[in-house]
Amino acid sequence: MKKLTIEPIRTVLLETAQTRLDSLTKPIGSLGRLEEFARKLVGITGMEIPSPLSKKAIFTFAGDHGVTEEGISLYPKEVTEQMVYNFLRGGAGINVLARHAGADVVVVDIGVDCDFTGQPDLLIRKVVRGTKNMRKGPAMTREEAEQCINTGIAIAMEYADKGYSMFGTGDMGIGNTTASSAIAAAVTGRPVSEVTGRGTGISDEALKHKIKVIEDSISFNKPDPKDPIDVLSKVGGAEIGGIAGLILGAASRRIPVVVDGFISTAGALIAYSIEPAAIDYMFAAHNSVETGHKIILDAMGLQPILDLGLRLGEGTGAALAMFIIEGGLKIYLEMATFDEAGVSKELL
Amino acid sequence: MKKLTIEPIRTVLLETAQTRLDSLTKPIGSLGRLEEFARKLVGITGMEIPSPLSKKAIFTFAGDHGVTEEGISLYPKEVTEQMVYNFLRGGAGINVLARHAGADVVVVDIGVDCDFTGQPDLLIRKVVRGTKNMRKGPAMTREEAEQCINTGIAIAMEYADKGYSMFGTGDMGIGNTTASSAIAAAVTGRPVSEVTGRGTGISDEALKHKIKVIEDSISFNKPDPKDPIDVLSKVGGAEIGGIAGLILGAASRRIPVVVDGFISTAGALIAYSIEPAAIDYMFAAHNSVETGHKIILDAMGLQPILDLGLRLGEGTGAALAMFIIEGGLKIYLEMATFDEAGVSKELL
Repeated sequence: MKKLTIEPIRTVLLETAQTRLDSLTKPIGSLGRLEEFARKLVGITGMEIPSPLSKKAIFTFAGDHGVTEEGISLYPKEVTEQMVYNFLRGGAGINVLARHAGADVVVVDIGVDCDFTGQPDLLIRKVVRGTKNMRKGPAMTREEAEQCINTGIAIAMEYADKGYSMFGTGDMGIGNTTASSAIAAAVTGRPVSEVTGRGTGISDEALKHKIKVIEDSISFNKPDPKDPIDVLSKVGGAEIGGIAGLILGAASRRIPVVVDGFISTAGALIAYSIEPAAIDYMFAAHNSVETGHKIILDAMGLQPILDLGLRLGEGTGAALAMFIIEGGLKIYLEMATFDEAGVSKELL
Repeated sequence: MKKLTIEPIRTVLLETAQTRLDSLTKPIGSLGRLEEFARKLVGITGMEIPSPLSKKAIFTFAGDHGVTEEGISLYPKEVTEQMVYNFLRGGAGINVLARHAGADVVVVDIGVDCDFTGQPDLLIRKVVRGTKNMRKGPAMTREEAEQCINTGIAIAMEYADKGYSMFGTGDMGIGNTTASSAIAAAVTGRPVSEVTGRGTGISDEALKHKIKVIEDSISFNKPDPKDPIDVLSKVGGAEIGGIAGLILGAASRRIPVVVDGFISTAGALIAYSIEPAAIDYMFAAHNSVETGHKIILDAMGLQPILDLGLRLGEGTGAALAMFIIEGGLKIYLEMATFDEAGVSKELL
């Protein structure tokens, strides 16, 4: 895997930022988490007065999963490919919400089981044509898993060079809640049943089967919880590796990254396990309906920004959360101080 | 009080809206509360395909409170006036967040204890020059309270005629968490201590004093819980009456209204007590830090959209929530259907 330098954020800057926040025309602390987001952006960028967010992008990594053979999803595998076309035409949920938040959508084929041709807007960085069925063996080789991470890192570098100052993560891959639950169980040691949800909306019976498939995959492959690349390769997915790489690359370039839902957070857990300092650069977009999501967020000590019952993925929660975080930055940059506005400070 | 017709929304339209949502390229229900917001907007507007939100406005009603004589706030009363100037210059929190959400800010002097001159952008609709000290008598006369509500209604009509299609509420008034807690206790019958918080950030001791002042005000004035105008006049505030009127006016014109934090929600409670059908037109922006807020929301059966530890008021939470609600509408209007996108539907 590519070697990166990721520095923890400078906590002294958080205090500087709070001093400025306390000079603004509002009661101390009255903008709650918006103030937290502003402080964190100061720490991340290392700038006392960060620049406004000019260009924002959401990276939707797409990949297929061999484990769909086991019948763990409500949708046929072909939907991954079909949805990539939907993204490219601008008709999917992420297109709508990213436009709404003023972010670009970058669609990455990192592991879809088809050949896309004549799609100039698609980043084709295919590492695998779908993963293998993890119930029967490792989903990917160790080399493939590393290559997925390196692909995410390279994309982060490319878009940092293009002047983007905030990233969001997103995913598309039929079967990828199954892989994400497997990662959650493998890394946190929690029982599979606690970290497995209904994905696109499967029945009670199908959920039992999904749990069994994940348990079988973990018993068969024995992923090493201390070795995130081992976990990613054996029970993960190409898009999850790409997301992990994107986060690591963003952190190495001091770019804030808004982590979407359950699948993205599984990617974040891989990134965090590789380099714990990366956590300082992450925002958790929302609390999804998938039960494993909150468990991973807690394990990393991240508090989600939104709680809207979302479970679509693609980066949809990240797009909405970006707007809220940017609101915190604008408060920091644009509000008048007590002195500027001639407003009296506290009496007591 | 001006007589209005407020019709409950047509629930049959909610089903029509859900049918459309279920045809979009996403698993059924996977956009959670965004789908709820889209359905509600269809019900409110009465249009199967609502128009995009062209013009949005947040109305920040400002008024002073005689009860500040009792030393219940961290800030001097003059801050109400000073903050109105800050709003008009665009330097306050609400200016920043409304710009961010693409909404206009309309500042209304409904009861500030000063004379504003030469402020073309200020709506001067003064009903009182501050309320009276409610610990010593009613805050307003019944006629003044009705006039506050009528003022809010008239503003709603004016901006409906101007083509605004979404309203948000906001408030400015040193001392107005005291009035809002008094309204919450008077209407819900809950003990004052349960519905009273720290406002701008007072100490434990000051909080005890604030609770005593509110208890005294209620014992002295004996507001009738069955008569919302009586409650508003005796222990309310001019800006709270204006907000109640704005909500009623919006509902009568089928315009959705995003209710900000604790003070706005106290206004919403007055509106709801006058006309329960108005609830169908309200969105609860966020869950503020003030303890009485959640209690009023629960009493009205509203679930807040955001939970960001905000306690600034002005309409700041409403601005952020507007963006989220508008996201739900855009999903409804802009996403491709399964048929349009050629995406396979569920297997099961």
